[in-house]
Amino acid sequence: MPSDNRVYIGVDLGGTNIQTGVLDKNGAVLGRDKTKTKAEVGAAGVIDRIVKCVGKAMSEAGVEINQVAGLGIGAPGTINFDKGIVEYAINLGWRNVRLADELSNLLSGVPVFLENDVNVGTWGEYTAGAARGYSDVFGIFVGTGIGGGLVLGGKLYHGHFGSAGEIGYTTMLPSSPPGRRTLENVASRTTVANLLAELVRAHHPSVIRDLVGDDLTEIRSKVLAQALEKGDPLTIQILRSAADYVGIAIANTVTLLSLPCVVLGGGLNEALGKTFVKWVRESFDDHVYPPYLKKCEIVVSKLGDDAGIVGAGMLAKDHVG
Amino acid sequence: MPSDNRVYIGVDLGGTNIQTGVLDKNGAVLGRDKTKTKAEVGAAGVIDRIVKCVGKAMSEAGVEINQVAGLGIGAPGTINFDKGIVEYAINLGWRNVRLADELSNLLSGVPVFLENDVNVGTWGEYTAGAARGYSDVFGIFVGTGIGGGLVLGGKLYHGHFGSAGEIGYTTMLPSSPPGRRTLENVASRTTVANLLAELVRAHHPSVIRDLVGDDLTEIRSKVLAQALEKGDPLTIQILRSAADYVGIAIANTVTLLSLPCVVLGGGLNEALGKTFVKWVRESFDDHVYPPYLKKCEIVVSKLGDDAGIVGAGMLAKDHVG
Repeated sequence: MPSDNRVYIGVDLGGTNIQTGVLDKNGAVLGRDKTKTKAEVGAAGVIDRIVKCVGKAMSEAGVEINQVAGLGIGAPGTINFDKGIVEYAINLGWRNVRLADELSNLLSGVPVFLENDVNVGTWGEYTAGAARGYSDVFGIFVGTGIGGGLVLGGKLYHGHFGSAGEIGYTTMLPSSPPGRRTLENVASRTTVANLLAELVRAHHPSVIRDLVGDDLTEIRSKVLAQALEKGDPLTIQILRSAADYVGIAIANTVTLLSLPCVVLGGGLNEALGKTFVKWVRESFDDHVYPPYLKKCEIVVSKLGDDAGIVGAGMLAKDHVG
Repeated sequence: MPSDNRVYIGVDLGGTNIQTGVLDKNGAVLGRDKTKTKAEVGAAGVIDRIVKCVGKAMSEAGVEINQVAGLGIGAPGTINFDKGIVEYAINLGWRNVRLADELSNLLSGVPVFLENDVNVGTWGEYTAGAARGYSDVFGIFVGTGIGGGLVLGGKLYHGHFGSAGEIGYTTMLPSSPPGRRTLENVASRTTVANLLAELVRAHHPSVIRDLVGDDLTEIRSKVLAQALEKGDPLTIQILRSAADYVGIAIANTVTLLSLPCVVLGGGLNEALGKTFVKWVRESFDDHVYPPYLKKCEIVVSKLGDDAGIVGAGMLAKDHVG
């Protein structure tokens, strides 16, 4: 088979959805599929669902398994990427699942590479997205939680214990108690929504009540985007504070690692668009050191929902060559 | 000449002193010298003083210039290590001094390698000091200021713009104004001394007044060590706060980079000894994430005053092989 026909499969395994894609060597998506994860069926059941979802993407792309040079998969939780094991994934209910080996066995022995989902997203943006062309990249994804990934010298950087990139767990407020001091505690979408709900309940004036009615548990990214667009002062104040913290965390990372490029993604950032990035950038510029590090680019994630499948597929390509 | 006879020269150029050492391939010091920098004589004058100081260390070691395989030099300020230029060093009064080339010319063409002084210190501890045996090391040095250096994958990590390691300039207190928010602003010896002087002036009870009399500008590391030994509550409170911040900065770095080893050095740490390290460790354990990163070792710098010459010499060895 001519090497030009080789394709790569990328799988994005989340707590809610499985997404699969067949990619050419440049990361273009030739076929795709999406299905519910249904974590309640257990690990073996979910792995079956992944295999079916892979099959559908291959059908759409019109490729056979013998054309697949490798499969990459990004999963949430604590990953042993060396051994291909999901050690602990709370939203899948998994402990020590040998995901890479089991998938490979069910897919004619195709080489399978497992990686943390945030690292996969960063790798996608680095190889085929917004951070293309830089060899050192910090990816930061702001959503329900806040995750980070590092590419240093053109390679995913895992660190000695394999957990590198955990920016969400760095301390931003030294004097605050546990649960209120990390970046995730002060700037995730969850925190923003909870804080806003609390203030609205305490009768602070805000357009939020008009948007969600009485159900203040429903302040999702889309609602925040609407409130921001309407110029709601309370929402602006809280989102601006979150953006300030994200900007400081990025500045600290760039100051420590002297990086040329940061890619900013995740649900909150995608929903809020340019305003949020502008605030993050202002905070970054105000805190990074030395001053010439302001040359560092902060780019917005380009692959969006495809970062998982593209990153995972490109990771497989990087491994098998 | 048999390669076993090859020696390496390490130079530690500071604002106050020049130190030189002749090292064997294992980093053992065969000869050394020390002299005042006298920055007021200008760059050419200081370079002359370095050459003489190198000559004396060579005499003591009984080696000739043709046995010297390479010379490494650590300098303060902004260093272009690629070009061997001191771009900006405030305490030398230097701007764009081609230190590597000029030294090489005056020393029979010996290859000269210039590096930031903090990176040199980290490299010394990594190759021949407390952090030996780890391939990923963060060095943090707490003194007048706070500097940091990174060894990743067995190499000094400079980052894209060359400034990596600047932990002293990371933001610890997001809500504080410039000048009061960085690690250096809250935990350097300068900050500790100023804060203590301010409180003693405001008549807070403390043993400090007995130790330094009326001259509250004289609160140096040794005085802090004495006050600590006497159990002075005010001194303990302020030093403990500084140690807490240092521990958090180390925790954030280890959380981000998943490191197995941190080496803690610098004047303040050396003067205060085990108590300070214990406090730093407690704060680190309280903040690092995930919990298994508590396996990371925090070791105390072993080379002390020799870190500069040993690190610089070993850096030259690494370059010339």
